[in-house]
This record gives sequence, structure tokens and C-alpha cells, in this order.
Amino acid sequence: MASIPSTPLLANELDIVIPTIRNLDFLEMWRPFFQPYHLIIVQDGDPTKTIKVPEGFDYELHNRNHVENLLGKRASCISFKDSACRCYGFLVSKKKYIYTIDDDCFVAKNPTGEDINALEQHIKNLLTPSTPHFFNTLYDPYRDGADFVRGYPFSLREGVPTAVSHGLWLNIPDYDAPTQLVKPHERNTRYVDAVMTVPKGTLFPMCGMNLAFDRELIGPAMYFGLMGHGQPIGRYDDMWAGWCVKVICDHLNLGVKTGLPYIWHSKASNPFVNLKKEYKGIFWQEDIIPFFQSVVLPKECTTVQKCYRALAEKVKEKLGLIDPYFTKLAEGMTTWIEAWDAHNPSSEAAGSLTNGMAKVNLGK
Amino acid sequence: MASIPSTPLLANELDIVIPTIRNLDFLEMWRPFFQPYHLIIVQDGDPTKTIKVPEGFDYELHNRNHVENLLGKRASCISFKDSACRCYGFLVSKKKYIYTIDDDCFVAKNPTGEDINALEQHIKNLLTPSTPHFFNTLYDPYRDGADFVRGYPFSLREGVPTAVSHGLWLNIPDYDAPTQLVKPHERNTRYVDAVMTVPKGTLFPMCGMNLAFDRELIGPAMYFGLMGHGQPIGRYDDMWAGWCVKVICDHLNLGVKTGLPYIWHSKASNPFVNLKKEYKGIFWQEDIIPFFQSVVLPKECTTVQKCYRALAEKVKEKLGLIDPYFTKLAEGMTTWIEAWDAHNPSSEAAGSLTNGMAKVNLGK
Repeated sequence: MASIPSTPLLANELDIVIPTIRNLDFLEMWRPFFQPYHLIIVQDGDPTKTIKVPEGFDYELHNRNHVENLLGKRASCISFKDSACRCYGFLVSKKKYIYTIDDDCFVAKNPTGEDINALEQHIKNLLTPSTPHFFNTLYDPYRDGADFVRGYPFSLREGVPTAVSHGLWLNIPDYDAPTQLVKPHERNTRYVDAVMTVPKGTLFPMCGMNLAFDRELIGPAMYFGLMGHGQPIGRYDDMWAGWCVKVICDHLNLGVKTGLPYIWHSKASNPFVNLKKEYKGIFWQEDIIPFFQSVVLPKECTTVQKCYRALAEKVKEKLGLIDPYFTKLAEGMTTWIEAWDAHNPSSEAAGSLTNGMAKVNLGK
Repeated sequence: MASIPSTPLLANELDIVIPTIRNLDFLEMWRPFFQPYHLIIVQDGDPTKTIKVPEGFDYELHNRNHVENLLGKRASCISFKDSACRCYGFLVSKKKYIYTIDDDCFVAKNPTGEDINALEQHIKNLLTPSTPHFFNTLYDPYRDGADFVRGYPFSLREGVPTAVSHGLWLNIPDYDAPTQLVKPHERNTRYVDAVMTVPKGTLFPMCGMNLAFDRELIGPAMYFGLMGHGQPIGRYDDMWAGWCVKVICDHLNLGVKTGLPYIWHSKASNPFVNLKKEYKGIFWQEDIIPFFQSVVLPKECTTVQKCYRALAEKVKEKLGLIDPYFTKLAEGMTTWIEAWDAHNPSSEAAGSLTNGMAKVNLGK
């Protein structure tokens, strides 16, 4: 198949993180693309349950007992009975890049009927710069057949390092419960052949279903918050991470891309269950968004860790007034950073040094 | 053909403005789409030359003599021997909407081989809201089959009125001279099936080749500057208009969309000639962009005219230091607004009242 590269890109520099509660049969479909990579499986829920992984994959599996053993008291920052637990996989990885995908996501086809190698596209997105300071009307200027258009300042054409690649979904759209209820039959059938940078100063809804990032550049900010068991909300784990990540990327002059690649999202979750998880979030986000739109990080925050600690402080101070949940979340954020630093001892130093692009030939 | 609506949208509310120096044979291809509309042809260059317009079109033709007669001394603000003269057509129109297109632009085909009714798509773009305050990862949420995704604040889902619809080009990309020289054979073959809002606070390179706007909402800011004969630069007319327009739209809470529809751009202009026109602009834009990125309009500026006058003041004050050209340009901007107001006597009052969407059923 033409879409499988003869040499998988970054095979030794990328981990695939999968949160799950079931057997990973979905990996069969991904075998041609994922088999060269190491998988970090984060088993949510009952740790005594056995999760079957198809033969031939290189993986490590972490259940709740592993989380508790490794993090001790700090395990409180890792959500339980919620896919937010995936961020534990980001923390234990030792690689530079992470791709995370949900177990109800399958290989999509492009308009000519070929299987889409989502991971390959994510890697291309991460290894080419982003352009957050000025909008390019022909989208990603670094793609083959595209460039910067007339009127794009030359001084901005070098771009900035890309920290995040946010992929999309065909079939079941990523709608909130109210929209699911109103449009139960809507499917995303539109293949938009574009990758673009989310401009500086603009927030976006980051979905964790099909997401890649540079762990060295932004890893410590990829915390999926406190959701699920014992918490008043769910389904805002990836949104929370996305808002924190975007504010920090803007501050540190890093890029966030969205668009290609698509995966095939197979099954809509139950909108009634979702509504119960979401309803406080739907209400709270009306305050959360203005908070993130106006928050300013101090100039002294020159690493992701410093930014994240400063952000946790501000969350506690400003959002803590909305509900005690945010005070607890701010504590979770601080605990997360402590846990990250404990298990990634050199990451803060590395993060401030490696603000550059990997030198990989993408054939352009 | 399925793409021709049985009833043309807004036939009595939209003018098509075409700047030209040649016979308008290109209109033959557009006949099924343009014939129901009134054309305003702005003849550039020698006014004694006869421009042939194919039979059956409803049009008015203005040459330089008409410009001088109508505007008198103020005619100095209208460029000569440059397609920037098109803005004269915007000024003399009495309609609410404008579509402007270059005479080397033809009907493009969508991926299924159907002719694209560019004007119909522009009208849809203008008659549905924009979403400048938050990025929607599934692009235009108002299109059929799309919506706002999970995490998009509900209070922002009403959007804001759309002032500008910026369409794109297949075949010859809109590159500057240096890029043309480096990539003489590059063609844009990628049909990206998306319309999106350029986020608030983000500038973009607005191309005048395939552009529609709401004249009541933003018309007075659609000034294409001083280019061509007697001026030190060219090919920055639409860029200049775009930067002014975007800053004013952001200030007045109006939206700018880019993406669909595509037209077919047939012929690359001469890169050597272009380089001569552009080289000062390429240099100057490195100062112009930071100026527009940081300019703040006073709160009292509640109409486009007030915004534009304030912007002209700031251009004179800040950019005038770069080159005397910008002092002249600032004067041109002021003259333009005087001319606009003289020929559109009630527009300022109207502009501050009609900050709402036209109520047209788009079948959604």
C-alpha cells in the first residue's frame, strides 16, 4: 500500500498511548501502521480485569495498581473511571513524541479510497513548523504544492516549532450531549484536505481521540485534569488540557495544528450519560473560556513547568470562586507537575533547551 | 445544472464589480451565474479605448473620465493603471452586497466535476454568521452536516455578522514575485472543502481576485489605496484593504470568512514586472504588519467611517515615519472617506443601525 512508508517515521522516538477498559481488538486494523511503535496501554477501571492485546505488538500495560504504586500519594491527580487517565501514559513515556488514540477509532479512508496512515500525517505535522502569527489562506504553507501567499510577511515564514497536532474524525462527530440529542443522525462525511495552525490568541476545543504532541516541548501541560470517579464532571478532560496547552504554547511561541489526519470514529457515546457528565461543564465553560482568553503568564515563566505552575495558581485564585472543584483541580495540576518532574528528572532543563525542530527529511 | 439555483440569491441587492483593461470575453463562462446581476465595470487605463461586453449583461461602465467627473479633486484617491481602481465601483454601487472578480478568473470545477457557482457560495458565506472568538475544529459550524463541536461555548454559538467572504483560487496560486520566481511551475490543485472564520486578532492576506462583502457593514473600509501610476508600489492594494478591514471588523465585532468558493485563476502575471511593483512593499510590510497587529481603535469609533478616519490618522503618525508614501496614502484614505460619504449620504447612519444579519432562507 502506497500510504505505508517503507521506513516508519520516528519509530524509536514515539509512543502510542491508549486508554481502555476492553480488549484491544481495534489494533488489528491499525497493525500496518502501529506495529513498528511501542504502545503504552493505560487500563482504566477494575485492575483485576484482563485486557487482551493482539499478538505482535510491543506494549506495556498499566492498571490502577501500577498508577498507585508508581505515584503513591500523587496518584490522586490521575483520574479513575475516565479516559482522562491517559495522561498517566504521557508521564511514564520516555520518548520525545506521543500519539494518543481512543479504542473506538478506526482507520479512515481518504477520498480516493486509500487507508489513511494517521500517525504518519501527525508526525509530518509535528516535524514541520507552525504559523501562529499570521493566517495563510492556502492553509499549511509547508505542504507539498502549497506555500505562503502574496502579502505574507517574509520574517514570519520560518514559523515556530510545532508542539501539538490535533487530528479530526469522520463519521461520528465530536459533539456535546445537547447537540447529540438534537442531531442524533448527523455524521461527519466531509473530508477537508487541510492542516492549519490555530492562530495565536485563539482557543480551540482540543479532542483527545486522535492527538499527537511533542512531549519535550509541551508534555508537562498535557494533564487531563480530574474527571470521572468522585468528580462532578466528565468529558472536559481533553478540553481542559487543550485550553492550558494553547495558552502555554502562545506564551512560549510554540505552534498548535489542527486538521488532517482523519480517523474513523465508530460509535456515538450515550447522549443521556454524556449530559449527566457534561452539564456542569457546559455551565462552567462560560466562565472558563473568558479566564483562558484573558490569562497572562509572567515573563519569568520560560519553561512549560513554570507556566503550568503559574496557571494552576491562577486557576485556584480565579476559577476557585466559581466552585470548590476548581481549587481541587488546581491542586491536581500542582500534584501532576510534581509527579511529572519526579519521573522526568531532566525534562525542565531539556524543555528550555530544545526549542527547535527535529531534523527529519520529510521529502520536501 | 444542479449548481444553478432556480432563483438567484439577492439578485437585486448585489453588484458585481470588475476592473479591466480588455474586452470582457471571460463573462461568457460566467453567464449562467452572473447574468441575473448588475455589473459595474471599472475601465482602467486609456478612457478612449472601447471595452466590449458580451450581449445580454446588465452593466454600467466607468472609465477614468467618469471617475474625474464624479469625484472632481477627490479623484486623486482612485488609483490609475492598477486594478486598485476597482474600489471606485464599490463607491458608486447602491447595493448592499458587492462581489468583485478579476477578468482572468474563470469558473472552477468541484472534485465531482461540477461547475462551481462562486457567487452563490459567497452569498451563503455572507448570510450566515462568523465565529471570530473561538476556533471550531469542524470549520464553518453553519454548513449543512456540520455544527459546533464539544467544548465550544454555547454563548458564542450565535456568532457575529459576516462582513467579508474571501474566496480562493485553483490553478495559479496568488504568490508574490519571489515565490513565483522560485516556483514557476507550482499550481494549486488542492480543493479544500472548507469555509472558516479568520479569528479575531489575526491578520490575513486578503486577495481582491474573488472577494465578496457586505457594503453596508464594511464598504467604507474597502479602499484599495494608492497603487500603480505615479506610486512607488503595486500589488499591495488588496492587502492594504484587507489589513484595514480586518482591524476594523475586529473592533466592530464583524466577521471575515475565507475558503470556499474557488475560482479558476488562468494566467500567472509576469514575476519580473511583479517584483518591480512589489519590492518596496515586501520591505515595508515588515513594519506594516506589526503596526496593524498592535493598532487599537478608540472606543468612540462606532462606525466604519469613524474607524477608518482614526486609522488614517494612525497610519500618518506611525507609518509616515517609514516613507513619505504613507503620509500620502493616509491623505488618500481621508479623501476616500470624504468621497464615500458624499456619494453615500446616509451610509454612516445606516452602518451603525444595520449591524444584523439579512433574513434570507438558505435552506438550512
